Amino acid sequence: MPDTPALQSSLHAELAAQLDQLATDGLTRRRRTLDSCCQPLAVVDGRELISFCSNDYLGLASDAGLIEAACAGARRWGVGSGASHLVSGHLLPHQALEERLAEFTGFPRALLFSTGYMANLGIVAALAGRGDAVFADKLNHASLIDAVRLSGAESRRYAHGDLVALERLLAASSARRKLILTDAVFSMDGDLAPLPGLLELAERFDAWLLVDDAHGFGVLGAQGRGSLAHFDLPSSERIVYMGTLGKAAGGSGAFVAGSQTLIEWLLQRARTYIFTTASSPLMACALLASLDLIEAGDARREHLRQLTGRLHAGLAATRWRLLASSTAIQPVMIGDNHETLAVADALYERGLWVAAIRPPTVPKGSARLRISLTAAHSFEQVDKLVAALRELA
Amino acid sequence: MPDTPALQSSLHAELAAQLDQLATDGLTRRRRTLDSCCQPLAVVDGRELISFCSNDYLGLASDAGLIEAACAGARRWGVGSGASHLVSGHLLPHQALEERLAEFTGFPRALLFSTGYMANLGIVAALAGRGDAVFADKLNHASLIDAVRLSGAESRRYAHGDLVALERLLAASSARRKLILTDAVFSMDGDLAPLPGLLELAERFDAWLLVDDAHGFGVLGAQGRGSLAHFDLPSSERIVYMGTLGKAAGGSGAFVAGSQTLIEWLLQRARTYIFTTASSPLMACALLASLDLIEAGDARREHLRQLTGRLHAGLAATRWRLLASSTAIQPVMIGDNHETLAVADALYERGLWVAAIRPPTVPKGSARLRISLTAAHSFEQVDKLVAALRELA
Repeated sequence: MPDTPALQSSLHAELAAQLDQLATDGLTRRRRTLDSCCQPLAVVDGRELISFCSNDYLGLASDAGLIEAACAGARRWGVGSGASHLVSGHLLPHQALEERLAEFTGFPRALLFSTGYMANLGIVAALAGRGDAVFADKLNHASLIDAVRLSGAESRRYAHGDLVALERLLAASSARRKLILTDAVFSMDGDLAPLPGLLELAERFDAWLLVDDAHGFGVLGAQGRGSLAHFDLPSSERIVYMGTLGKAAGGSGAFVAGSQTLIEWLLQRARTYIFTTASSPLMACALLASLDLIEAGDARREHLRQLTGRLHAGLAATRWRLLASSTAIQPVMIGDNHETLAVADALYERGLWVAAIRPPTVPKGSARLRISLTAAHSFEQVDKLVAALRELA
Repeated sequence: MPDTPALQSSLHAELAAQLDQLATDGLTRRRRTLDSCCQPLAVVDGRELISFCSNDYLGLASDAGLIEAACAGARRWGVGSGASHLVSGHLLPHQALEERLAEFTGFPRALLFSTGYMANLGIVAALAGRGDAVFADKLNHASLIDAVRLSGAESRRYAHGDLVALERLLAASSARRKLILTDAVFSMDGDLAPLPGLLELAERFDAWLLVDDAHGFGVLGAQGRGSLAHFDLPSSERIVYMGTLGKAAGGSGAFVAGSQTLIEWLLQRARTYIFTTASSPLMACALLASLDLIEAGDARREHLRQLTGRLHAGLAATRWRLLASSTAIQPVMIGDNHETLAVADALYERGLWVAAIRPPTVPKGSARLRISLTAAHSFEQVDKLVAALRELA
């Protein structure tokens, strides 16, 4: 329904003008409604598409075991938790999931958050404030950027993955408390942070190291234990490990794992933990089932690795630059916003759904296709995408 | 498992010292795990308690209809959405729920968020920034306070519910864009914001008015349509209406409703909408069932009103001050942190679970019991609480 004529308010005129400007710049985001989906197939406006957009890396979101665990959880616990964790919303499945996540990631304790965004905001603002300094990779996720801003700490950004630049910043800092923030797998580039080097710098400069493993948890490392396991890093008390549960785990939410003292501090002081309703207990039940599947999911991960290698090799011949990503996130660098959209549209016409990623999600001039693979894809589906991209290039 | 001795790092020593200080100040928060719950009963450590802690105001979280809708949703759509709304995570149940919420609240359009916290952060930062001014009630929820901080806008706080003070601030402001923020029902006091007066000021000073109806949606107004309906306010294009779905609606998540232009702007620019995984489609399915129950829930709301009146009248005789709340949130003002905890503990010993609310959730010196009633309570249960509180006073 259109807005009424009374909407001549300057407030609305200003927003409308800014929306027009987005359209002119090729930056309007399109939202499509899926009429049905069964990884990796999706139906939109009556058309069946092969989706290369999902972060459901192991195909667990529609796994029968998760679904039955969710239903059993709903029958036993109801749908909503009705209160925050620190009032009366902390139910047995939340507790069991926290214990399982701690054990799975090898940390003394874990704490659930409703989303990864809220986890990052809560962690950073609870650990750093005025007088402290935060050192952040320039390609970190939006939630980490907002977290620094919310914390009020001094913000120092270092060039993507640049340990030398980071070392210089740390050495020059006289801040009371230091906190290094990094994505483990960068969400729009697919590459890994140099975690061993980052940990070494954190030790040397007595800093916290917050690792956001949204895209590594469940996918990388032995039994899918994540990016720290991938690098075989020793457990360190200065690591704040954040993992999300809405990607490879196939559910929703997030957690942070770390030392007893750290987690108790976050429970007592992280505002986005304290002042929000606890997530649904049925989701915690589903996620307990998911962790078993992740742990036993080597075959899924091996298939995903093979798909990734095949895609990367197949695309090496196009005129577009690939990034040095060995993960399920494979960006095809196009650059121009309008051209990126045009290629995505042409793929879509062929029944292949790939996300066109533009600023401000990525830096200006680096618009790209972001192909994401899941264990639910077949070799044939990947070959089809490769053939279409070669033709379009 | 205790932290290792290597934890002599200054980072941990500092947190440990701060945790000790919280304990000394009577500010340590306790988290209890519910071994079972069926509103309003909860089992903790083997003891059955009557809970007066939940925001599940209509008792819908464990409603059989919601549970079956969640299970049917899981079977049809899976557990997780696997992607953000603007990539490929926007499924038919999300779309249907947004349309139903718009219709139910009387606004042209609605947009789902994963939590109320994220909705508030996203809205405020998308509507206000440097050069703009935000005018906020001093007792607003933590998420609104953080939202202002994140936005970078100038922050002006007015005394709780004080329209005269707000008018002065608005008149004195030369900010480019103005945004008034208020809880509709204040979460720790239970009273209502003067919404008609706030809207009149918003009109007069060409400001947006963000109404956070976390505790009014589903409970107040005809058919539970919320606080705006309670005041019979005309639909206004300058209202940004935020409602949560984890309290009276019995599920989890939140939404914002408003004009077409406003919602399109938030979809395009609210970072907490764009950069996060869409909520679970099964939750959207459960919430569609919940809205039908809310709409048809006059009997539940009438029972809740009667419980509220009975509690308020029953407590008028104690030495503790009650607030002028006519909602399901009934605070008993005690003041001292330790005394508040002691009274809550004594109630707990009698099988009555009431939350002790202390700073920083409420201002220093205003620690209180926060009794919250739900339609699932019986008159006998309320009488039991009244008798225990009279005895303790």
